[in-house]
Amino acid sequence: MAPPVIVLVRPQLGENIGKAARAMLNFGLTEMRLVAPRDGWPNPAAGPAASGADLVLERAEVFATVAEALHDIPHVYATTVRKRGLVMPVVTPEEAAREMRALPERSAILFGAERSGLETDEVAVAGKIVTVPINPAFRSLNLAQAVILLAYEWSKHETLAVPTEGEPREPRATQSQLEGLVQQLYGALDAADYFHPPDRTPATKNTVRTILTKAGWSNREVQAMRGIVRALVQGRRK
Amino acid sequence: MAPPVIVLVRPQLGENIGKAARAMLNFGLTEMRLVAPRDGWPNPAAGPAASGADLVLERAEVFATVAEALHDIPHVYATTVRKRGLVMPVVTPEEAAREMRALPERSAILFGAERSGLETDEVAVAGKIVTVPINPAFRSLNLAQAVILLAYEWSKHETLAVPTEGEPREPRATQSQLEGLVQQLYGALDAADYFHPPDRTPATKNTVRTILTKAGWSNREVQAMRGIVRALVQGRRK
Repeated sequence: MAPPVIVLVRPQLGENIGKAARAMLNFGLTEMRLVAPRDGWPNPAAGPAASGADLVLERAEVFATVAEALHDIPHVYATTVRKRGLVMPVVTPEEAAREMRALPERSAILFGAERSGLETDEVAVAGKIVTVPINPAFRSLNLAQAVILLAYEWSKHETLAVPTEGEPREPRATQSQLEGLVQQLYGALDAADYFHPPDRTPATKNTVRTILTKAGWSNREVQAMRGIVRALVQGRRK
Repeated sequence: MAPPVIVLVRPQLGENIGKAARAMLNFGLTEMRLVAPRDGWPNPAAGPAASGADLVLERAEVFATVAEALHDIPHVYATTVRKRGLVMPVVTPEEAAREMRALPERSAILFGAERSGLETDEVAVAGKIVTVPINPAFRSLNLAQAVILLAYEWSKHETLAVPTEGEPREPRATQSQLEGLVQQLYGALDAADYFHPPDRTPATKNTVRTILTKAGWSNREVQAMRGIVRALVQGRRK
């Protein structure tokens, strides 16, 4: 399953090309194509902005037209927010990512120039439009931000890109492990004269029990709480 | 359904604060809080980088500490990629967004400083860690990019948000209500000589904090726990 090709059409600033490369590599995309970059290629401003995503820039290929850049790509998505009188399917980044995953051939995503975006005839080359659902009162997504959202959605379905740093979740304590804490605390509170008046004792005990149950602690956490109660009680005996 | 509060902890460059504001407003988030911004606030570099998201910057509030910034927020997510010896649930931006949608009270997302990220004790204040699944061979997500991915995920479910049905639930305690219990227990445990050896004290305190945070208690339950701790301590004095 080859990752999609990111095609920047008439990008203006080298800095934005570098930022797009950085956005791509964060989510495992490495193939960038440039159509008629305004300031030529290579562009010295791209490298510093890429923050180390040099391999994306080094491999970037330059083409004169959108059609040439897409010569070997069967499935093309055009990112745009504007209505254009084109009758084309419009999908969200999430839908586009899901579709690209299911396609047996390669896909590409077109991004227009910084201010002007894609021309209508460039959009028409694509099979579908991708539109990021955005605050209609603001709409100020820059090129690298659009790239990162698409790259992020694509990588979400990538099994390699799972969070590797998380702790495995601990299983919840068993009822009897929790009961040990409950009974210990009942005993300690009884000794501290917490339960009064006596006719309220069962209700108060139930409150304590539900509070401890709600916490959803693991056995490690239950044992830590037992240690805490023990420390408070033993402190008392000193 | 109030959108989450975006909390930038010790942000360095005004430009990055502006970019974060722009990222937020693109996805309908307007409430930004700043904890100890390095260059003070307001910062003249923020406005130009916000590209028109001025209302976010104008409404931004400044706090001296993370705890103060979260004083009225019951549900806190910390964005981090690092292992920290904290046993806390780790969720993806997608999972965090879905959870925040389902929560009846407000939530906040903490973002650390540009290079250093969040300190361990700042992460420990949160109930959960959010980690963006990222290319393990690159990992170069900047502050505004992290903000935009979280904001984007949140806004995705905008139309799907439905009022929660079923049992009326007690609202979760705010961060400052919970903090009262945390500090009270720290004090009681310190008096009971629980924290030893001294070099383990910060880690042990973070463990205690995460256990109490995980519990998800309401203010009524937090106050009941405070009464329990008080009883155990006062019992000792008899």
